Parts: sequence; C-alpha cells; structure tokens
Amino acid sequence: VKASESPPGSQTDWLTLNIGGRLFTTTRSTLVSKEPDSMLAHMFREKDAWGNKQDARGAYLIDRSPEYFEPILNYLRHGQLIVNEGVNLIGVLEEARFFGIEQLVEQLEIAIKNSQPPEDHSPIS
Amino acid sequence: VKASESPPGSQTDWLTLNIGGRLFTTTRSTLVSKEPDSMLAHMFREKDAWGNKQDARGAYLIDRSPEYFEPILNYLRHGQLIVNEGVNLIGVLEEARFFGIEQLVEQLEIAIKNSQPPEDHSPIS
Amino acid sequence: VKASESPPGSQTDWLTLNIGGRLFTTTRSTLVSKEPDSMLAHMFREKDAWGNKQDARGAYLIDRSPEYFEPILNYLRHGQLIVNEGVNLIGVLEEARFFGIEQLVEQLEIAIKNSQPPEDHSPIS
Amino acid sequence: VKASESPPGSQTDWLTLNIGGRLFTTTRSTLVSKEPDSMLAHMFREKDAWGNKQDARGAYLIDRSPEYFEPILNYLRHGQLIVNEGVNLIGVLEEARFFGIEQLVEQLEIAIKNSQPPEDHSPIS
Amino acid sequence: VKASESPPGSQTDWLTLNIGGRLFTTTRSTLVSKEPDSMLAHMFREKDAWGNKQDARGAYLIDRSPEYFEPILNYLRHGQLIVNEGVNLIGVLEEARFFGIEQLVEQLEIAIKNSQPPEDHSPIS
Repeated sequence: VKASESPPGSQTDWLTLNIGGRLFTTTRSTLVSKEPDSMLAHMFREKDAWGNKQDARGAYLIDRSPEYFEPILNYLRHGQLIVNEGVNLIGVLEEARFFGIEQLVEQLEIAIKNSQPPEDHSPIS
Repeated sequence: VKASESPPGSQTDWLTLNIGGRLFTTTRSTLVSKEPDSMLAHMFREKDAWGNKQDARGAYLIDRSPEYFEPILNYLRHGQLIVNEGVNLIGVLEEARFFGIEQLVEQLEIAIKNSQPPEDHSPIS
Repeated sequence: VKASESPPGSQTDWLTLNIGGRLFTTTRSTLVSKEPDSMLAHMFREKDAWGNKQDARGAYLIDRSPEYFEPILNYLRHGQLIVNEGVNLIGVLEEARFFGIEQLVEQLEIAIKNSQPPEDHSPIS
Repeated sequence: VKASESPPGSQTDWLTLNIGGRLFTTTRSTLVSKEPDSMLAHMFREKDAWGNKQDARGAYLIDRSPEYFEPILNYLRHGQLIVNEGVNLIGVLEEARFFGIEQLVEQLEIAIKNSQPPEDHSPIS
Repeated sequence: VKASESPPGSQTDWLTLNIGGRLFTTTRSTLVSKEPDSMLAHMFREKDAWGNKQDARGAYLIDRSPEYFEPILNYLRHGQLIVNEGVNLIGVLEEARFFGIEQLVEQLEIAIKNSQPPEDHSPIS
C-alpha cells in the first residue's frame, strides 16, 4: 500500500510501516499529530524527508518489534493505552522510548510500578 | 478480494476491509443491516459514496486496531458479543464507540462494570 | 489454491475457504464426509452447485469468524473437539450452529454447562 | 518456496508444507532423519514418491491442524518437546499420532497423565 | 525484501529471514553487531559468504522455530530480554543456544532457575 501521492479531493495520506516484518497501515496524520515532538513524528513529518528505506511494496522499514509497537500505534490513533493480558509492559515501554513518545513512557512507567506484585515485573513476565 | 460488481444471479456483495493492515472479508449486508444507524453502516451503505480510500488490492482502508475490531465484526455477523480471555474489553469498547455501534457500547459498558474485581479493569489488563 | 480438477491418479479434491479473510485449506472429503447432513456438507457436496462465491485466489468466501471456525475444521478432520485455553466455547458453539454440525453443538453445550464455575461462562470469558 | 533441485555445492533440500492453510518451511532432512520410521518420514523420504499434492506455490498440502503441528516440527528440528502455556496437549498428541511420531506420542501421553489436576485434561482445556 | 545493494547515501543493509516459514525483516547490523562472536553473526557478517539459501522472495532460509526466535531478535535490537506471559522460556533457550548467543543463554538459564515454582519449568509449561 503506497499512497503517498493523494489524488485530488482526498486529504488523507495513507502509509504502511514494515515493523520487523509485519505490516501496519495507518495515516501520516496519526503518526505525526498526536505526539508532534516524538521521534516517530519527526520520521514521518515530511514526505520522505527522513530517508526511511522502503521495501518492495512501498512500506517503510523500521527494525523494531511489531508486537510491542501495536499498542503504541493504537495510542496514537485514539489517545488511550490499551494492552492485552499477557503482553509484557516492559516491551511496550522499550518501544515507546525508542520512538520518543514521552507521555506514553510516563504512563507505562507508572503502570509497571503500580502493578501487583512488584517482583513480578522483571523483563520476563 | 474486490467483488463489488455482483455477477447476475448472485445477490451478495463481498468487500474487504484493511483495518490497520489486517484484512477482513465480509459482506456489505453484514456491515449495514445489523446496526443501520451506526457510523460503520453509513460508511458502507452506498457503494463508494463515503469516499473510503482503497488499497492496491481493493480493500477499504480504516485506520483502527484490527484486534479489537474482530469481535465487533462477529457481533454484526450473528448478534452476539463474544470475546476471548485476555482480550481487553476497553479496547473493544473504544472501537465500538468509534464505529458508532450503540447497542454494543452499552453491552460492553455493562460487561466492564460487572467484571470482577472492579479495580482490575483499568485500561491495562 | 484451486485444485478442483483432480489429475488422473489423484483422488483428493483440495479446496480453500476464505473465512472472514483467513484462508483454510482442506479437502472436500473432510467438509462433506464426517457430518453428511450438516449445512457445511451441503454447501460443498457438489462442485460449485451451491453457488459459493470465490475470491481472486479461488477460495470460497464465507462471512464468519475464522478463529472459532478452526476447532470445527479440526473436528471434521479427526472427530475430536479440541479447544485451546482462553478460546471462548460460546464462540465455537455459535459457528457449530451456523454450519449445522449437530453432534458438535451437543458436545459444546455439555462442555459449556459442565465448565466451572458456571457463572464464568457468559459470552464474555 | 520450491527448492527441490539443489544447486551444486548446496546439500540442503528445502521444502514448504501447507498444513491446513499455513506454510511451514523446513528441510527434507528434518522431516526424514529424526524419526525415520514415522509416517511423516515415509511421506517425504523420496522426492515426490508419495504423491503429495502441491499448491500453486509448490507447498505440499496436508489436511491437518497447523497450530498443533508446530511443536511437532520443532521436536523434529532439535529433539525437545516444547509447548506454550494454553496450548492443548491433546491437540498435539492427535497430530503426533497422525504423523506416526511414536516417541513423541509416548512423551505426550506421559505429560498429559502427569499434569495437575488430572480432571483438567479433557479435550477442552 | 531484498535490499543488499545499498543505494548511495544509505548505509543500512536490510535483509529478511525466513525462519521456519515466517518472515522477519531486520538489518545486517542488528544480526552482527550486538553479539559479534555468535553463530548468527558469523552467518551474516559477510554478504552471502556463509552460503545461506534464499527463498523466492530473497529471504534467507533458516530451519528453526519462528515463535521462539522473536525475543532473540528483539534482544539483538535493544539488548533486553523481554518475553510474554505464556511463552516457554525453554523454547527461547533452545534457539539462543542454536544461534550461539552466549549472554542470552546465561540470562535465560538464570531466569528459568529463578522462576517459581521450580517444578513448573519442565519443557511443557
């Protein structure tokens, strides 16, 4: 899905990310607007300005974990941090730090600290 | 899968949604009939009227979470809300609100409220 | 995978189902022989007689949940109902009813009734 | 992935299995060497001798459960039975029996018998 | 995704691994730099020197478990071992040993030893 040239009459700029081999389709606005100071926003603010490489399907290559990126993208879509049971919050925190989503880093640090019992939240859940 | 032109003798109008990068195949009738006043029904009531963008395979692009959309589509198929263990109900609620499926929003709010213990149902399950 | 014309010397008739967007490959014999009176058997008894629509890859389109269909297909393959922890039995029951697999409907109803504690088996597990 | 003609200098014979619609890539040696008397070894001992049908991508079609086949293939790769939490051992046993992996059948029967509490190991976990 | 010839101005060398049928996209630097003495680093240090076979899409074929490889690749990306609930650590250890990631082998052995209760960490979790 490569849709970086918007046809006339359409405002939405769709793009696909290839995160570690899994594809995520979203809009440039989602990546850029919610957390404008994040590293992720800088990567996609201007079309192709950051020099991200694209795979053969036109998806932007990012060498990170797809599983832990998923709640981050949902957060950028609607502003809520929602994580399924069994998903390691430290994995999500690692990605939030990498992409520079500062508000989410804070939320995750508090969630990890508050979770019970404290000794269960080593990197291996 | 793009099957919007029904051949003669076939009434079913199949379409594929690209929700955040995952493909869901369903019929227009499923999206439109069960909850005719929902935003989702409005998006797909008339062919291409709403201006949804399509990807290279003809799938309609929607910038939302595929995981939490899945029980919503099943609900539209058969009228029951069925969610697996470990799936965060608040994630499903967020999508039900976005797509304007009002009856499902109510069911989910009650289910979240009734679940035990109450303090477990923060956004991070 | 469309292999409805068997080459000479090969008896097996392979076909692929597109259940809600996920592909399942199986044989016509699996779908038809185990539960010959089921709706599913009727759908695939005669080649293309039932008028199932096919997607661009030749897979037969069925507008149902892929996740809850999986144990049903395995049941038709070897006659045992096997469900993973965390999968909602009510979801499997819903599909067994839709496809008219009567013996499986009975087994599932008993399994749901017998599971402990009874109040845990609301549609939301 | 069809790589049955080894180029000179390469000994490995790669092949892909289409188990119920999911693709598994492995070597002929993995399928044949670890349990030489198994039905699976017989299926793949000689190139195309057994008459397995192939799909359009050259993957060998087998009408079984992909989920429960996965630990069996890993066992053939390194000789250890490793199963994730939540995966029903009876499902793995069913496949081990089908493919005639006798040592694994024994291991699984013992593991199922030893697991606690005994009444939890009905087919529906 | 085959991007072994870097265009001028781009330093990153992307490659895709086909681990047992699942694709992982990463950079050569991730595979080689973090644990330079590992077998994995040796496999990918020099372009095509090791003789890895590639599938039709150019992905390097490795006959191992994709599920248990995933935390290993994440470890090479950012140096933390992060494993989800329900994933069997012995499966990850088996892959860490195969790829010769010595530091990770040590971490995993300690994590398995420390986990409670000790008798729960048989190969079948």
